[in-house]
Amino acid sequence: MRATLMYGAGDVRVEDVPDPVLQQPTDALVRVLRACVCGSDLHPYHNKPASEQGSPMGHEFLGVVEELGSEVSGLNKGDVVIAPFVWADNTCDFCREGLQTSCRNGGGWGSPGVGGGQAEAVRVPQAQGTLVKAQVGEDSPLLPSLLTLSDVFPTGYHCATTAGVGDGKTVTVIGDGAVGLCAVLSARLLGAERIILMGRHKDRTDLGVEFGATDVVPERGEDGIAHVLDLTGGDGTHAVLEAVGYLNAYDTALGVVRPGGSISRVGVPQYTEANIGRDPFMKNVTLTGGVAPARAYIERLLPAVLEGRVEPGRVFDTTVDIEGVPDGYRAMDERRSLKVLVNP
Amino acid sequence: MRATLMYGAGDVRVEDVPDPVLQQPTDALVRVLRACVCGSDLHPYHNKPASEQGSPMGHEFLGVVEELGSEVSGLNKGDVVIAPFVWADNTCDFCREGLQTSCRNGGGWGSPGVGGGQAEAVRVPQAQGTLVKAQVGEDSPLLPSLLTLSDVFPTGYHCATTAGVGDGKTVTVIGDGAVGLCAVLSARLLGAERIILMGRHKDRTDLGVEFGATDVVPERGEDGIAHVLDLTGGDGTHAVLEAVGYLNAYDTALGVVRPGGSISRVGVPQYTEANIGRDPFMKNVTLTGGVAPARAYIERLLPAVLEGRVEPGRVFDTTVDIEGVPDGYRAMDERRSLKVLVNP
Repeated sequence: MRATLMYGAGDVRVEDVPDPVLQQPTDALVRVLRACVCGSDLHPYHNKPASEQGSPMGHEFLGVVEELGSEVSGLNKGDVVIAPFVWADNTCDFCREGLQTSCRNGGGWGSPGVGGGQAEAVRVPQAQGTLVKAQVGEDSPLLPSLLTLSDVFPTGYHCATTAGVGDGKTVTVIGDGAVGLCAVLSARLLGAERIILMGRHKDRTDLGVEFGATDVVPERGEDGIAHVLDLTGGDGTHAVLEAVGYLNAYDTALGVVRPGGSISRVGVPQYTEANIGRDPFMKNVTLTGGVAPARAYIERLLPAVLEGRVEPGRVFDTTVDIEGVPDGYRAMDERRSLKVLVNP
Repeated sequence: MRATLMYGAGDVRVEDVPDPVLQQPTDALVRVLRACVCGSDLHPYHNKPASEQGSPMGHEFLGVVEELGSEVSGLNKGDVVIAPFVWADNTCDFCREGLQTSCRNGGGWGSPGVGGGQAEAVRVPQAQGTLVKAQVGEDSPLLPSLLTLSDVFPTGYHCATTAGVGDGKTVTVIGDGAVGLCAVLSARLLGAERIILMGRHKDRTDLGVEFGATDVVPERGEDGIAHVLDLTGGDGTHAVLEAVGYLNAYDTALGVVRPGGSISRVGVPQYTEANIGRDPFMKNVTLTGGVAPARAYIERLLPAVLEGRVEPGRVFDTTVDIEGVPDGYRAMDERRSLKVLVNP
């Protein structure tokens, strides 16, 4: 089959690899219907050291069950299934607490012996715990929105829910990428009263307004902070959803969070040390979020997608086939595309 | 009257100052029955630049109402009242949310025009919102425990409650100072299943065991982390209550927190930058706590003190009169005393 491998920064190739096969009785084989390129894929695209051995890429996909191991129940061949961006048994203590990203028997796509989602097919470990069936056909127009349940939509939702967004709360979303826009959508679903979206790409913030943003702040840094404070009577907002991962976004979050409020981060931090000193302490700021346990949210979010109440799939503005994946990386890296859908 | 002033690091003096008088109709005058020296008083005791003008000291006291402004209701002359460590109107939006430390009309003891608690009397701004009456006499043996409601007990409670301590949770408390010991007591009140106290002063950790600690870890740094992980099957604890404020204590907290768990800090951080990078992000660690809104907790904790179900006043192991306050600072700084009670 054809699959995407990254050999180093900027070096993404689509190659022939052996077809995946069942290895464990808890496995499934899934033929990929749709996959996509994640903002977090751009980090290795910028930084990965060159290697002679390529790494399988892609951690967001949905597909059709082709084969099932003997110990997998609850799924059938032909089911359309959503794969969250880590696999997990969904039965260990962490999974029962909704923290499938720390599953005792889980792991990530592209880890040794497991392929990635930017491919024609994937072996899915712990299939019964990992995969969530969607009651749709292979040609459903809902596939793009369903695909967002792999990662970007529940990541935005994790951001909003860990930050305590709810009825009457004020929210700042930092970042107009796909996760930021899904954080806007999630804040609206959770009942936020006001949602200030910080972003400077008008086409993206326009979609953010359609998703529920009440205000758009295009300025960055100190000017952006001043604008948000001006909009909120000098207080800042109860929740700040930081969907970028760079230090300047975190510093902006510190500047716009209301005393007693929460900053939730879901973009993988591209820094180690940052300010958690006297100022946020005296304001009783909580810092929360983290890598999103997408699996914990899929069933909760699925009905809104199936009923068409939300359309998170609108974050996809480019579609490529499997051979076009390297172009897709380039388009996202150059900000020509918000998020790239892969239809292998 | 006699009052405590700090002129610089290590320079604490007790001097004659003008008696306080009512300045606003919302004021009260309180004759101090008991005050104390706080671990946080040791920070200026170490670092304060020398000055010709002394700063009034002390932010924990209880006393007797001597005079009341015309707009203060709900209090009477002769009432024994507890003063939380900031004053607040208790009616603004932040106060109603339980964040009196961010009161729109509040402030701190020792701020311009307001004296400190290590004195014979104090003018209390916003008295109606600030003071909490305790139904005891001036000679009650409960005064030391009631005094802890000014700061150290609710600070420990804030630490535990913001960290989500509750039934069945596992907890690590870092620090065997008075706040750490009150965090142990609070974790027990909140139903924690296991409370691991990290501290190396046996007399203090012995009291911690009486307050509810189930395990004591005397080692620090990597050895201490290894010991806590060993006690918890390698996972760490759901909640980590960091009651120290130094960077090494925070780093220890990172090492012993369970995935999905919370670190709550209540010791004023003596650092600005620290690790909030990829590791805590991938573990979904929440960082919470902050300067404790003691006022929000006093009514909740008062019955347990009045009924003798808890005795947080046991953290006081030294008593001085007003002239002995400088000796009290020295005793705490040299670790000869856990916490010093002032009986002016």
